[in-house]
Parts: sequence; C-alpha cells; structure tokens
Amino acid sequence: MTTLAPAAFPALPAIDGVSLHTVRAGYKPWDRHDLTLVLLDEGTAVAGVTTQSKCPSPEVEWCRRALVLGRARALVVNAGNANAFTGNRGRAAVEAIAARVAGHLGCQPSDVFIASTGVIGVPLPVDRAEAGLDAAFAAPAAGWEEAANAIATTDTFAKGASATAIVDGRTIHIAGIVKGSGMIAPDMATMLGFLFTDAAVDPAFLQQALDDANATTFSCITVDSDTSTSDTVLTFATGKAGNRPLANRDDDGADAFRAALADVCRQLAHLVVRDGEGASKFIRIDVTGAESDRSAHVVAKSIANSPLVKTAIAGEDANWGRVVMAVGKAGEPAERDRLSIAFGGIEVARDGLVVDGYDEAPVAAHLKGPEIDIAVDMGMGDGRATVWTCDLTHGYISINADYRS
Amino acid sequence: MTTLAPAAFPALPAIDGVSLHTVRAGYKPWDRHDLTLVLLDEGTAVAGVTTQSKCPSPEVEWCRRALVLGRARALVVNAGNANAFTGNRGRAAVEAIAARVAGHLGCQPSDVFIASTGVIGVPLPVDRAEAGLDAAFAAPAAGWEEAANAIATTDTFAKGASATAIVDGRTIHIAGIVKGSGMIAPDMATMLGFLFTDAAVDPAFLQQALDDANATTFSCITVDSDTSTSDTVLTFATGKAGNRPLANRDDDGADAFRAALADVCRQLAHLVVRDGEGASKFIRIDVTGAESDRSAHVVAKSIANSPLVKTAIAGEDANWGRVVMAVGKAGEPAERDRLSIAFGGIEVARDGLVVDGYDEAPVAAHLKGPEIDIAVDMGMGDGRATVWTCDLTHGYISINADYRS
Repeated sequence: MTTLAPAAFPALPAIDGVSLHTVRAGYKPWDRHDLTLVLLDEGTAVAGVTTQSKCPSPEVEWCRRALVLGRARALVVNAGNANAFTGNRGRAAVEAIAARVAGHLGCQPSDVFIASTGVIGVPLPVDRAEAGLDAAFAAPAAGWEEAANAIATTDTFAKGASATAIVDGRTIHIAGIVKGSGMIAPDMATMLGFLFTDAAVDPAFLQQALDDANATTFSCITVDSDTSTSDTVLTFATGKAGNRPLANRDDDGADAFRAALADVCRQLAHLVVRDGEGASKFIRIDVTGAESDRSAHVVAKSIANSPLVKTAIAGEDANWGRVVMAVGKAGEPAERDRLSIAFGGIEVARDGLVVDGYDEAPVAAHLKGPEIDIAVDMGMGDGRATVWTCDLTHGYISINADYRS
Repeated sequence: MTTLAPAAFPALPAIDGVSLHTVRAGYKPWDRHDLTLVLLDEGTAVAGVTTQSKCPSPEVEWCRRALVLGRARALVVNAGNANAFTGNRGRAAVEAIAARVAGHLGCQPSDVFIASTGVIGVPLPVDRAEAGLDAAFAAPAAGWEEAANAIATTDTFAKGASATAIVDGRTIHIAGIVKGSGMIAPDMATMLGFLFTDAAVDPAFLQQALDDANATTFSCITVDSDTSTSDTVLTFATGKAGNRPLANRDDDGADAFRAALADVCRQLAHLVVRDGEGASKFIRIDVTGAESDRSAHVVAKSIANSPLVKTAIAGEDANWGRVVMAVGKAGEPAERDRLSIAFGGIEVARDGLVVDGYDEAPVAAHLKGPEIDIAVDMGMGDGRATVWTCDLTHGYISINADYRS
C-alpha cells in the first residue's frame, strides 16, 4: 500500500436495489476473486462515459450500444483480461456473457453491462466467464470492499466513496467503486468506475449529470498520459428511494443530486491518482489567467503529463523551470513575461522571472510533503482549470517494465 | 557511457572558414569547458530552426531575429545555464554577449548567434560570459570533440557527424555537433545542434534545405515528449569550397547537398536518442497504411511517447497490446480490425488480433537486443512515417529526480 492510500476503505451505504457478488473465475493464475456480478432491480436507469480511444475494447462498444436504451439489470466486471484487440473472439465473449446473464435473469442481453480490465490481446476465456457467472449467481451478497478488490488489477488498495443528498424530501445515497492506477489519462475516466444510487433518475438526466461530473473529475486526472482501450464509468440509479424521478435541472433536489454525484466522482478520481503506479506525491495543478477554461485545461494537462515535472516532484525539487517548459510546450497562448508560478501557495516566479529574494526553504519544505500544489497564473484572461496527477518514480518503471510477464 | 553510444567520436573534417574555441566560463561549479565560441569567416550564410515552445528563451528570440538577415560571423554556446525565463536580465545577457563578440570582430551584433542550455530560471551571469569570451578569443583552436563536449550538459558522450557531397564539381564537407538527452521531443530539434559546411549556399536555400532535413530527422525523434524552451539547430555555410552558390533545387549538386545535410541531421538526431536519458534501447517506429503521412507521424509519436510502451521495451516485453493502446489514443483515424503490428520484422498481430500460432520466442529474442523495430500498419491508406525514440528506464528517473540539486 502506498503512502498516499487512505487509512482504510470507507464505510459505504448499501444501495437499495443493488446486490454485489464476487467469485474467482480464474482469468489469471491468481488466488483472488476476479469476476464481479452486480444485480440491479428492474427499473434501474444507467448512464455512462467511455474511452476516447480509437481502438476500444468490444466491452466498450457493447456498453455504448446498450447505453442508448438507458436501462440496466446487471453489470459484469472481469479483472485480469481486458479482452481488447481480440477480434471476433472478443466480441463473441462479450455476447456470451450478456446471454448467460440474460438467461439467468430473464432479461434482454442489452440490459447487461460488461467491463473487462487487464492484459490486452488475449481473448477472454468464455468457459471461465460462464462458469464464473453461474457461480456468482449462486454466491452470497458481497460488500463494497470485496467488489472494489475484485475489479482491481495493479491497484494497491481498494477504492470506494459515497455521498448523500436530499431529493424531493428524501435522502438518497450514492456509492461508487473504481479501479485503475496506470494507463490513466484525461479526456476520459479512470479505467473502470461504477456508481450506484437509490435515487430515481431519468436516464437522459442521469447521463447529463454524469457527463458534467466527469468533465471536472475523471477527465481532470492523469497518471501517465496513456489512455486505455477500456476506460468506462457507469452510473446506475435503481429508483428505490422513491423520489419523483429527476428529469430536469429545475427539479427539486436536482442540484443536490448533481453535486453529490460529482462529489463521489471527484473522490474516486482522486483515489485513482493516489494509487497511481509508483506514486509518492499527490499533485494538484491549478491554472488560472488563461485565455479560456479549455486553454487552461490543456496547459494544466501539459504540466501534469510532463515527465520532467513529474520526476522533479519525485525528487522534491522546486524546479519551476520545468513548469515553464511544460507551459510553453502546451501550444496554448502564453506570454512568458506575464507568467507566475507558485508551489504550495508560495510564489516562486512572477511576471516571467524568479521573485526578488526568493527563499527556497519553505518551498522545499512543501515539496517534502505528500500533497503538492502547483499554481500557474498565465496573466492573460479568466480561464481556469484544475488537474490532479502524481509523480513519476522508480516504482512506475518497476511496475510497468515487467507487468505482463 | 551508455551501451547505445558509438565506440568513439568520429573523425570529422575541418571546415574551411570555421574555427572552434572552448573555455571554462564557470557557469556551474564544474571543472570543464562550458563556453564555446565558433568564429566564422566573412560571407558565411546561416539558417536555423528553433523550438515550438510558447515560452522560448531570449537566445531563441535573438536567433530568430538574426536569422532573417541570413549572415553570421560567430556562434556562442553556453552550457550549464539555459538563461530561459529570466526576464529583462536574460535579454540583457544575450545583448551583452552579442556586443562583446561584435566588439572583438568588428561586426554587427546581429552577426552573432547565441544558444544556452542548462538550468532554467537563473539569469546567465554576464561577467562570466564576458570574461569567458575574452579568454575564448585568446584561446587556441579546438577540435570537434572538444566543442561537442563543451556544449553538453547531461549528455553522456560527445556527438558529431559528417558527410560530403559533390557540388558544382567540388567536394563540399558538412560537419555537425549536437547536444541533448532529455527534454527532447518532436516538433522541434534536439536541444542544440550546429552544422557547418564549406559549401557556398544562398541563405534562403540553406533554410529550405534545413527545414526539409529537420522535418524527417530532428522532428522525428523523442526522448520524453518534453519540448525545451531553448531548442535550436543552426547551419552555417562558409562558402570556402568555392562552388557557385547553391540557390535553387535545380542547381548542380543541390540534391547532393540536401541529401548530405539530411544525412548529417539524421546521424545527429539518432545520437541524441542513443543518449536519451537512461536509454537502454534504441527504438525505431515505422507506421504505414495511415490515412496520410501526417496522420502516420501523429500515430508514430503517440507510440514513441507512451510511457507504457517505453517501459515495456525497457522490460524486454513484447507487449503489443500497449502499442494498440497508443495507436488508439493518438486520435487519428484507425480501424482496430485492420491493424497489424510487428516487432523486429516478425508479425505478432494482423487484422486486429494476434496471429495464429503466435510464437513469442523470436520476438523476445529481438527485444533482448539494443535496437528495437516496431512496425504498425494501419491498413487504411498510403500514409507513412518513421520516428525514433528510446525506452523509459530507472535511469531516466534517477537522472531527472535530482538533476538540479
């Protein structure tokens, strides 16, 4: 467990209408649960965001099609095999899983959502998936932490978060789990994230709320700039809280629901960064004064993805020159002589050069801590953005130079 | 010296009209020459390409202005201090250097080209530069290897290359030196490269030849995707070979000159990759079958800059799934099911899935060597590109987590 991990898995509320089941399908020669089956009561709405990759997995393609219908009865998550880049055999595996679950539940295959994570290029073994599903249907209900562990691959700790909101006079609950620690990049979510709520929400509104939450949370994190073929975040709403279904931003509690959903997304996104492969520092990057919010986001990502910035933080080196470099390479409008940079709230450079009487001691002290703040003001406009990332360490190299073997 | 270094610095020809002088200005507390003064006879033409960074160093801005005039009498290279992001003091340092050299030579300051490399954010100490220049004017002529060492920073070996061509019935010579091993990215050259030729070349034609050579050499290498604030490649032509000046592509020997210039650029670019910080593998990435050459270049860069691909190669792991991932994240048109991938000429995946009876043994053997070839065919069109990079190792982290301190 890294030093950035929370002390313990949080206590998450049960979500009425959701039951979790985990088993060992044996996708890899490991002694752990690697298949998660989530059963959802009838009437559950679903929304989702998926990878921007031009080479998505068949699971992603399946989910995109199923999301159009907006309804879900089950979620299956396979860990240890991403089933990506596996041609017809990969597609057949996804269809077989959906059919098996639909057979058990008496629902449509399109009510079954599927996500897989792990090695790319090896077709998912259908026999293990089917036997695993049969076992999962017979398995007792599992808890959130067990499910969070069962969907994990290179993660070093289980990740979950929750929030509540008052909607239409009722307390609704949102619980979520997420996995991912490498191949994490902005423009999409973490590899796999699943949120569940007992609120009644119209699918279109749920999608809108998820899109908005994703834009400032999962899409604002990066570990290594690499975008997975399988990134998927799904949100399921069972409606068991009994509120009048949320369908518009004007509805009673809509704002509270949106805020709670974004809150859980943000917590989960931060947990992914905290478990970034090899991470020893959690880094927040605020860019202000850019020409637009979009421009600020591009600059913040350029800083967050710079290997030289990330290694400087790993080395606890207040090397703000590398921040300048990363601003410059972003390609966005910038005026070197208006640029200001701060670490941990301490300004180190203003208007394009180091501050008078710069004292590195307090900055160095900030960099020794586990939570690093970098603030860049472009001095040009009102655009702003925040991105979260981690440092780049020997641990990342060790994990990724021999992950598959 | 890394395992990818050449056995020795090559024998480079003297270039008539060029004299090299190196001294210790003392930009850092190191016991080595760190100021290089290159004197160029009257009538020398110059061309150059500089960084795409939006926050360039004052040296880059100076060179861009001076390049418009197309003539040069001197080049000054400072190592150990990039003088970037130093505001008015940085600009004043550049002007002082140009004035000092112009005073010695009795030329215009705009005839003096200046490049600096090293830490960002610390104004170049003008007194050391001026004293160093005075000493350099009194110093005996140095050789190419001494100059290549004097312009280096984190480089682990001196880098030089040469070529000859027949132009207008005369043999012309091109010799070049380059420095750089981190903060190297495509879309611009290595940090600093300097080429010298005795050919007579019109400045506009020299610029065109350099632009073309750069597009397929320096702009096709990447170590870590980070673009320097100071990247500069300059080419000086003294005209001492006595050929009728090259001014058009139809001129006798123009093609030979262009080919020789591109050859030296390619050799120098490859040397930078071979000295990539922490590099243990030299990686060539060929992308074919893309919608366009530009699209192929973007895909090749996406593969070359992927930390997961680079760490897989470091681990000698034929993890072609990560290549698929990098193709997918490039954002260029791609059809997963038409994609083919080969390592070392051995096809591992075709039409979107692993080849029948895939035998990893010969691929693994290829990956154990120091020169790795990755070929991706997109199966869509005629676009092609080649990019060179190196792997991402513990060495990169070690070098960059404590470079400044």
